[in-house]
Amino acid sequence: MTETNRLEAFSDGVMAIAITLLVLDLSVPVRGELGRNESLGRALAQMWPSYAAYVVSFLVIGIIWMNHHALFGLIARTDRLTLFINLLLLMVVSVIPFPTRLLAQYLTAGGSQAHLAAAVYSATMLVMAVAFSALYVTATRRPQMLQPWVDYAAVRRAVPRFSVGVGVYAITVVIAFVSAPLTLATHFALAVYYLFDQTGSVAAEPDAGAEPA
Amino acid sequence: MTETNRLEAFSDGVMAIAITLLVLDLSVPVRGELGRNESLGRALAQMWPSYAAYVVSFLVIGIIWMNHHALFGLIARTDRLTLFINLLLLMVVSVIPFPTRLLAQYLTAGGSQAHLAAAVYSATMLVMAVAFSALYVTATRRPQMLQPWVDYAAVRRAVPRFSVGVGVYAITVVIAFVSAPLTLATHFALAVYYLFDQTGSVAAEPDAGAEPA
Amino acid sequence: MTETNRLEAFSDGVMAIAITLLVLDLSVPVRGELGRNESLGRALAQMWPSYAAYVVSFLVIGIIWMNHHALFGLIARTDRLTLFINLLLLMVVSVIPFPTRLLAQYLTAGGSQAHLAAAVYSATMLVMAVAFSALYVTATRRPQMLQPWVDYAAVRRAVPRFSVGVGVYAITVVIAFVSAPLTLATHFALAVYYLFDQTGSVAAEPDAGAEPA
Amino acid sequence: MTETNRLEAFSDGVMAIAITLLVLDLSVPVRGELGRNESLGRALAQMWPSYAAYVVSFLVIGIIWMNHHALFGLIARTDRLTLFINLLLLMVVSVIPFPTRLLAQYLTAGGSQAHLAAAVYSATMLVMAVAFSALYVTATRRPQMLQPWVDYAAVRRAVPRFSVGVGVYAITVVIAFVSAPLTLATHFALAVYYLFDQTGSVAAEPDAGAEPA
Repeated sequence: MTETNRLEAFSDGVMAIAITLLVLDLSVPVRGELGRNESLGRALAQMWPSYAAYVVSFLVIGIIWMNHHALFGLIARTDRLTLFINLLLLMVVSVIPFPTRLLAQYLTAGGSQAHLAAAVYSATMLVMAVAFSALYVTATRRPQMLQPWVDYAAVRRAVPRFSVGVGVYAITVVIAFVSAPLTLATHFALAVYYLFDQTGSVAAEPDAGAEPA
Repeated sequence: MTETNRLEAFSDGVMAIAITLLVLDLSVPVRGELGRNESLGRALAQMWPSYAAYVVSFLVIGIIWMNHHALFGLIARTDRLTLFINLLLLMVVSVIPFPTRLLAQYLTAGGSQAHLAAAVYSATMLVMAVAFSALYVTATRRPQMLQPWVDYAAVRRAVPRFSVGVGVYAITVVIAFVSAPLTLATHFALAVYYLFDQTGSVAAEPDAGAEPA
Repeated sequence: MTETNRLEAFSDGVMAIAITLLVLDLSVPVRGELGRNESLGRALAQMWPSYAAYVVSFLVIGIIWMNHHALFGLIARTDRLTLFINLLLLMVVSVIPFPTRLLAQYLTAGGSQAHLAAAVYSATMLVMAVAFSALYVTATRRPQMLQPWVDYAAVRRAVPRFSVGVGVYAITVVIAFVSAPLTLATHFALAVYYLFDQTGSVAAEPDAGAEPA
Repeated sequence: MTETNRLEAFSDGVMAIAITLLVLDLSVPVRGELGRNESLGRALAQMWPSYAAYVVSFLVIGIIWMNHHALFGLIARTDRLTLFINLLLLMVVSVIPFPTRLLAQYLTAGGSQAHLAAAVYSATMLVMAVAFSALYVTATRRPQMLQPWVDYAAVRRAVPRFSVGVGVYAITVVIAFVSAPLTLATHFALAVYYLFDQTGSVAAEPDAGAEPA
């Protein structure tokens, strides 16, 4: 088993890049294609699905990062299986710009196209939630993988809580077939909820006093 | 509350990527579209708004990075609210390539298109200034969040200074409706000013002697 | 000779970026080009070579990262030659998105186009394997370049094992002229094999007890 | 004055990203535009200027990174002026993908277009050399900015050597008007030379024994 610094640094890099690549899909209306009297303002306003998808995906990746770090704050040592599950999680996080631009482009297409784009977006988040749960379970599966100050039993008691998260994202796949904009709004609400949910942090942090320098 | 290293590393990553993605909007004139006798030099010269926008946005993100680090040099511990406000700041920084290419493309379009593009650019910087001020206020709001050698009262006395910055960026939104090139020039002047403004660093740094190794 | 931290941080950055840039080649079907009744689902399904190439190249770069870190976990000091060989390896890793999109685009083209694209992909991986072997040989060539707890003889005995890896990738170049999809499947199988191959880690790690804090 | 860790981490990030973005300009021949009997191989072969420009620019940025780290290995503390000059250097490094794709696209255009593209490439490298020299002079200008084990006089004696580098890059601007391919070949030769030039490292490194842990 090896220490976690390098896994965290690489994961941070991948998540920082994925979150920043989202901006590449905010494309500017081409000047030559707008008439001189046509409204740039209207063209920009019609891009609202791109802005909305940018904000939601940015928050989602931001939360993954926060929870990833909360998790590895508990971990003292990792093994090859943890590295592999972490790589699968990173593969899902890295791919998020793809369903984001898919949903941005088809959000207002109506009909089955919008539903499918929303379903692909929700399914990506569902796979992400499953991968994060698997990472939590794997990375904390033996007491000696945890920091000495971490309560192993408490960490394992938190495992069922992940089922709730996975279930919630499964429901967003269903919502996709009701309404694509509602799907995006649901993901926004979930992101804001998780940002402030203290129990959403994967485990209690140690007292400031007990923390290592 | 947790230590700041990982927040800084992630923020550094996002800012480094956003500043480097700016180059993707310096597009090369397509060879097939220039006649063999047509001047590549003239085509490159006509791209001056892209170069100017690249330089200004690069300096702006560079200054945000410098001030972000000056701020977190004062901070010993962060909490979930600070992480959230920091994530909002990063969302604005990450989006800067979008108004940059918007302004580059419409700077010389004249009329309402140029004004609107400049206003979007200035408004982005205004939101950034508000987010940075909010981060400063949040991250320094309790004495125990600061490094032991930091003077809490002095740090809080610096808060009103941020109102000046926010006000200055609000004025650039107004300038956008006067002239787009003047708006970009103003942002350049502001960037150079802040680069050398010693009071612009968010707080006095400790004596070299008092500094931790 | 200098310490390895900075080489590792730079290498991590390059590999994290190369792995994340792969998503840029998952392009979304343009909305205007699909009729309202045409199936977005079918358009997305036809992109399967892009998804397959994404997954395989992601795993390949992930394994390079894991083995790169296993290697530099053994190394105490580097020299200018090691830096140079490492730079060559990074040049190959950085270029992987190019053969990936080439193979994704021509996988189902049939005939010589598909074979050539697969051969370019396999050849890139072959060059990568050669570069990694050269890095291993160079970085471990003197006992004083290794961590004190590393068994120099054991590290050098592992060198011939790299010939096997190089040979395997050479065979994938031959497979490219049989079938492009089979080539991609072979690279997938190799990636999964190396992910779980304990002898694939470049050398035995020290006992947890003997490891430096 | 502040410590150098964060400046180095941010600079590493920017250089790692700039070097990796180079691959985005290796575009794949569009499948629909090649006839089924037309040779993909020939289309790929005709892209040789892109490959050559990729390799040369990759090596150039790699050398800047190596020398940047050799420099900051000598530095104990930085100030705001050093941060600013470093930011200017990073601005030039970040922009390198632009002249790289310009030169790749016009290398074989012949006539004044090729000369101009080569001149822009050489001029970028010249500005980079000037910025690096300015950074060296600024960052080492006072003995107390250096690590305690560094010989201040020796570091300052190395300053004139930078004039040679600046002069060499100035000559490549002249070569651009002779031949664009020769210009690229010259930059390749310079990169290889600097990679192995021991005096090219900005200053003698300390004995292994005298080095800090």
